[in-house]
Amino acid sequence: MTPLSSTARTRLTRAPERGSADRSVLYEILDAGMICHLGVVVNGSPRVLPTCYGRLDDTLYVHGSSGASSLMAAPSQEICVTVTHLDGLVLARSVFHHSVNYRSAVIFGTPELVTDPDEKLTGLRTVVDHLVPGRWDAARGPNRKELAATSVIALSLEEASIKIRQAPPSDDEEDYALDTWAGVIPVTQIFGTPSPDPLLRPGIAIPGHIARRVTS
Amino acid sequence: MTPLSSTARTRLTRAPERGSADRSVLYEILDAGMICHLGVVVNGSPRVLPTCYGRLDDTLYVHGSSGASSLMAAPSQEICVTVTHLDGLVLARSVFHHSVNYRSAVIFGTPELVTDPDEKLTGLRTVVDHLVPGRWDAARGPNRKELAATSVIALSLEEASIKIRQAPPSDDEEDYALDTWAGVIPVTQIFGTPSPDPLLRPGIAIPGHIARRVTS
Repeated sequence: MTPLSSTARTRLTRAPERGSADRSVLYEILDAGMICHLGVVVNGSPRVLPTCYGRLDDTLYVHGSSGASSLMAAPSQEICVTVTHLDGLVLARSVFHHSVNYRSAVIFGTPELVTDPDEKLTGLRTVVDHLVPGRWDAARGPNRKELAATSVIALSLEEASIKIRQAPPSDDEEDYALDTWAGVIPVTQIFGTPSPDPLLRPGIAIPGHIARRVTS
Repeated sequence: MTPLSSTARTRLTRAPERGSADRSVLYEILDAGMICHLGVVVNGSPRVLPTCYGRLDDTLYVHGSSGASSLMAAPSQEICVTVTHLDGLVLARSVFHHSVNYRSAVIFGTPELVTDPDEKLTGLRTVVDHLVPGRWDAARGPNRKELAATSVIALSLEEASIKIRQAPPSDDEEDYALDTWAGVIPVTQIFGTPSPDPLLRPGIAIPGHIARRVTS
């Protein structure tokens, strides 16, 4: 895989040791996330909206209502898509060195509105299967009206910045003598026991693809 | 409490039933979050960065290195701060009605760089105690050099948009006859067993404020 390109805005000016140009690390961060934060400029001001996404090879797909103004504005302008995992609260001996353990990816680019019908279906499948792998084939596919009501944009994963911190606290030398407890409180995202729709017909068991999504 | 102001960009054009103008709901969403996504415009392009924050009354505080270009640019221009909780994967009978349960707050405004020394300390305390309530008093406070290396910005919570979805799937009438399993996979963030710093001096027990942060 080609490494990620380095540009002025993806180069880390602080804590460069937290960075990575490894494309496979970018893919891991994206594949483990559920929600991205999509930034667009509207009338000169920033707007940051949470949304679902999916990745296929080096393309990120985002879908939304065809009526969503921020998504529809996106294909004509640059966007920024950020995915963040919070992995721990880092409690140092000094307030100054408090931090968090995290993995984040910040992607820049100008997306394309997907107009090809086959790619649009592929993009939607990618987004749905990102939530629960195998879900697309288990559910009713989209009809013509539903497809028309949905927009899909594709963002090429070319310019991205990765930052990772996974470590105990780092304190000033003289502070290690203090009586203050220091360490990390780990933070994880748990997928719990599936809750059936109250209107679910009797006798429909939880299928394998749903059971596999649950945190063991 | 005064309700949140309604502006063109905070008014929900789609699914208005998911909105709220209740300020106490905004505070709940912010207080339960750990990371915000801060959007700024840099050279005309959007940039979305994850960062820590804290809330005191109707002010949101964000801190960062004095050398962080995006944060330093912020006081002179509008920003957008978004906090999102993912609460569930909503698996409908049709792919079209797949969704997520979530709570999100999108805040717009022009922040102020905090220059008053007392308010700067208050802002930093707010951010640190947001991670773990009571942490500020347990750790060594900042010295002059550390304060100079840190910037704090304050954003007034005036213009904000709240969106909440907490419900089972909503399918088309004819799809309820399908054999497809439908329901919600709940998603929660867990604060796990604290991991002491390998360099922690022997005999320092986990204090109450840390133990209280752990998910029971």
